[in-house]
Amino acid sequence: MSSNTIVLLDIPCVVEGRAWSPNTWKTRFALNYKGLPFTVKWVEYPDIAQACKDIGADPTGTRADGSPSYTLPAIYDPSTGRGIAESALIARYLDKTYPDTPRLIPAETDAFHAAFQEAFFHLIQSKMKIMSCPTAAQLNPPSEAFYRKTRETIFGKRLEEISPEGTVRETQLKQLQEGFTKIAGWFSMDGNDKLFFMGNTISHADTSVAGWLMWIRQILGRDGPEWTAIQTWDGGRWARYMQYFEKYEVASI
Amino acid sequence: MSSNTIVLLDIPCVVEGRAWSPNTWKTRFALNYKGLPFTVKWVEYPDIAQACKDIGADPTGTRADGSPSYTLPAIYDPSTGRGIAESALIARYLDKTYPDTPRLIPAETDAFHAAFQEAFFHLIQSKMKIMSCPTAAQLNPPSEAFYRKTRETIFGKRLEEISPEGTVRETQLKQLQEGFTKIAGWFSMDGNDKLFFMGNTISHADTSVAGWLMWIRQILGRDGPEWTAIQTWDGGRWARYMQYFEKYEVASI
Repeated sequence: MSSNTIVLLDIPCVVEGRAWSPNTWKTRFALNYKGLPFTVKWVEYPDIAQACKDIGADPTGTRADGSPSYTLPAIYDPSTGRGIAESALIARYLDKTYPDTPRLIPAETDAFHAAFQEAFFHLIQSKMKIMSCPTAAQLNPPSEAFYRKTRETIFGKRLEEISPEGTVRETQLKQLQEGFTKIAGWFSMDGNDKLFFMGNTISHADTSVAGWLMWIRQILGRDGPEWTAIQTWDGGRWARYMQYFEKYEVASI
Repeated sequence: MSSNTIVLLDIPCVVEGRAWSPNTWKTRFALNYKGLPFTVKWVEYPDIAQACKDIGADPTGTRADGSPSYTLPAIYDPSTGRGIAESALIARYLDKTYPDTPRLIPAETDAFHAAFQEAFFHLIQSKMKIMSCPTAAQLNPPSEAFYRKTRETIFGKRLEEISPEGTVRETQLKQLQEGFTKIAGWFSMDGNDKLFFMGNTISHADTSVAGWLMWIRQILGRDGPEWTAIQTWDGGRWARYMQYFEKYEVASI
């Protein structure tokens, strides 16, 4: 590992050395797919803003009170001195800075990737109520408290009340399934069933889908009843999808 | 014009020979961009289902009561004997059947086009309350009655109450503007400002955006205050966009 090794800022969980966030998983997949070595700097939720400022990464949004919002993933690349946050911006940066690595957002799909992001938010990211409690339980205390407070403010109820066992939770899981089934349909619109968005080649859209599936699998448990159900959705598509991504789960260094 | 000329099923309006629907405009742009000659069969709303069945076009959806739903655009291609409804399916059919014409949905963008369609629905198509009254006013009586009845059922109020002048309508227009501004941002995500989704080449996503802009311009009036405002949105992007599409407005025969 040279002093030019990329640093990935990631959120830790109760399992040491294990990533917790669906969004940082996207960048892990991206770096591993490109074969770019990286080290990890673990950052608890309350420290994310300062850590991003320290590497010169711009905020990724604006809070309700107008103040800047900082999120992970972020990377720091010593070879250029740049700090960048947000998985799509990072993918574009890596494509540009390391042109000899496989491209994640080919030019002709650049605008389409932004459209994908919008659709993915509506179909999947906004349908994640089932994750609220189990995901909080896997965070370390400082992050758990931060996560609980922000989510309880958004939903206007206690974390434990967002997805209670029974018909409420079953309906939420069904809505998530509908989102994935819609996306599954996208892979064969022209009659050719594809494994990935662009066919046989991974793109940023695929690392996004895989990142969120990784999170779901890890949090709900590989042998849990809900992940077991998800593996049967859409003719087993998502089980195959994650099987393919296995080789990009572990960092190359 | 040969006996093999494609027939486009379109919805007429009070101006004879003038298309009315945002969705049939997509297919008009597609046929003209590809240089494929076509004739038009005008179909009033209450006759759409039968006209689609007559050419063997499949339904495009399911109504709340479970019955099949038929919509336009649809085309009948005498050279293959095929009838197809829905603009994206038509684009894919034309790409496949006429491979020497410019392609609207390149293979590597096929799944992304479906993602675009989902995002476009959320950002634009679902934000069209301002169009309810003026668009109904431009339909012929049989279509106007049909359109009014279906829309009043959806919204649970009279057509005239959906977008009343004043702050309600101003807010609706602002929401529509936010959708277009988001899409405008997609054209320069990688730092290269593009005219169209794929750069300098039109795709089905572009005929979709242009089709809806055509409808808005025609219904609200080219010199009306709202279209005048829209032309200033996003640095004049949409005015330039529609200027480019002018050459594809009129059929090639």
